[in-house]
Amino acid sequence: MIEDKNQKRTSLSELGEFGLIKHLTKEFDFIHESTVKGNGDDAAVIDFKDKQAVVSTDLLVEGVHFDLAYMPLKHLGYKAVMVNLSDIYAMNAVASQITVSIAVSNRFPLEALEELYDGIKQACKIYNVELIGGDTTSSNKGLLISVTAIGQVQEGDEVYRSGAKPNDLLVVTGDLGGAYLGLQVLEREKEVFKVNPQSQPDLDMYSYIIERQLKPEARKDIIQLLVDLEVKPTSMIDISDGLASEALHIADQSAVGVNIFEEKIPLDPQVISTCEEFKIDSTMVALSGGEDYELLFTIAQEDYPKIKANPNLTVIGHIADKQEGNHLITRNNTKIPLKAQGWNALLDS
Amino acid sequence: MIEDKNQKRTSLSELGEFGLIKHLTKEFDFIHESTVKGNGDDAAVIDFKDKQAVVSTDLLVEGVHFDLAYMPLKHLGYKAVMVNLSDIYAMNAVASQITVSIAVSNRFPLEALEELYDGIKQACKIYNVELIGGDTTSSNKGLLISVTAIGQVQEGDEVYRSGAKPNDLLVVTGDLGGAYLGLQVLEREKEVFKVNPQSQPDLDMYSYIIERQLKPEARKDIIQLLVDLEVKPTSMIDISDGLASEALHIADQSAVGVNIFEEKIPLDPQVISTCEEFKIDSTMVALSGGEDYELLFTIAQEDYPKIKANPNLTVIGHIADKQEGNHLITRNNTKIPLKAQGWNALLDS
Repeated sequence: MIEDKNQKRTSLSELGEFGLIKHLTKEFDFIHESTVKGNGDDAAVIDFKDKQAVVSTDLLVEGVHFDLAYMPLKHLGYKAVMVNLSDIYAMNAVASQITVSIAVSNRFPLEALEELYDGIKQACKIYNVELIGGDTTSSNKGLLISVTAIGQVQEGDEVYRSGAKPNDLLVVTGDLGGAYLGLQVLEREKEVFKVNPQSQPDLDMYSYIIERQLKPEARKDIIQLLVDLEVKPTSMIDISDGLASEALHIADQSAVGVNIFEEKIPLDPQVISTCEEFKIDSTMVALSGGEDYELLFTIAQEDYPKIKANPNLTVIGHIADKQEGNHLITRNNTKIPLKAQGWNALLDS
Repeated sequence: MIEDKNQKRTSLSELGEFGLIKHLTKEFDFIHESTVKGNGDDAAVIDFKDKQAVVSTDLLVEGVHFDLAYMPLKHLGYKAVMVNLSDIYAMNAVASQITVSIAVSNRFPLEALEELYDGIKQACKIYNVELIGGDTTSSNKGLLISVTAIGQVQEGDEVYRSGAKPNDLLVVTGDLGGAYLGLQVLEREKEVFKVNPQSQPDLDMYSYIIERQLKPEARKDIIQLLVDLEVKPTSMIDISDGLASEALHIADQSAVGVNIFEEKIPLDPQVISTCEEFKIDSTMVALSGGEDYELLFTIAQEDYPKIKANPNLTVIGHIADKQEGNHLITRNNTKIPLKAQGWNALLDS
């Protein structure tokens, strides 16, 4: 779908390992305040002064986490960074550095990796994050990207999954289910394309959900918003595996119960219409879809007035005692047990 | 060679992704002074107080960096940590945390990953390093390990590749070439094994070089030794790609020339005898073999008395002006240009 047959192809072996990493990272030259030494030595050096360091890491594997048939490499680079920054923000921290390692088979020309790094570079610029290191190596098959994100947080400002208390409110940012539905649309178009390679699909009516899948944004803005609103969440997690799975993580690690109101779950109109078209339940999609990279957090009840007018934030439930268990309260007021059926890399394959 | 047909095999899909990472990391429970929060949240939190953080990352790919036909998984886990700690020590820093991510195909049973993590655990214990995070995912083929190592260093104590000055002495730790030769012996045995699976090779006479390949040790001890000797190197790098390649990195980044004396290069007797057996030049092996994970550094001449009696350290050359270039001075006193012919992942495949 996205292949350009006339593209320039420079073989990776023309550059060699050192040449390749130098070439790919040469335009990443702005220096973050805390970065003492970036690329080009055995390791990078970072000085956080009086702040704590926050570290998270993720692997993205071709054929498991992404399909290059519809994922442009530039978007992939951008998304690989987002996935990791999202974990840093979920600690109520500010991301400042990343390392990126790739394993790549020789079927990829240099130009493909340049595209990948263009996306990484764009993510670094927009999110004010610096690429400080990495590794480039060959793989026997396909492409694999490993990103480690590093952030900083004032001692005492960090927010764990474990701090939710009974009666706290459960809040979610943005809207849910779009990334999963975008993937369904792209998978369907891929099948159409296999049958008829000349088809030019009109995907305008799915533009929002496709963008949610191909170019998600981590919620850096929310971390600043919480500072501005003077709200410190009692617990927080990012939504990578679906609302249900993440809510259960908070409940489990905080030793509490959680109730989610179906009618409160924020859905984009495009999610609702596409669910109707695909004959899928939109609540199921929000609960189990994953990859939305929104933030899910709990706040004390007295903080409610501070957040209630904000269009980015939706109260979708509340925390209960552990023995009450975890439930979804449906639109017709039935209480059903909340279950995680999120994407599971090892079961899927 | 190392396969045990009767081993217990638990399918990875029985555990699922969350179960797997929990299971593999459950015994990594000691808490480092600087680790505020380890595994189990979106990210780990580290407090280095007044010290700087040092970060390095590496990928190891099955079929490119290791061959499971002769690399036991426990050793692989150990080595994956060593490769990264070595980079931290090469900054004159102390390693304190690691993250480990693996991509693994379902052909590996749980017991295989337990072995891998046993090796990681052993490395963590011996080197006083804590596993604080990671990711586990499936791959379409083979095993891939991505490690990020984090260390700390007092501001001003860090040593870069770029600080060498003309007249400085070039110093190497331990001895060189063993890891490469160990690999040659193992490759040869693998070929023998293919022809005759009943063969029981006697590898006693290669024990040192095989251990150099399968179970290298990063030189944490040298960082402490330099403190004890009150020597701060002017530049430093670890030897992963061979002496020549690393010496040229120092020369290049310090904008100086370098001279290495062939007769000074430290070689173990087993390296010399195995070179004779394989009819390879031992100097070539030391210069280009790689994977020794020794440290190469430069010191000011006035520090020479402090290091000269130490059996761990060998002066093998000196730094010159840049226009003099980079040379090997052979045993018969011929000056030949120093060239890097190190292992190159992308050219090899």
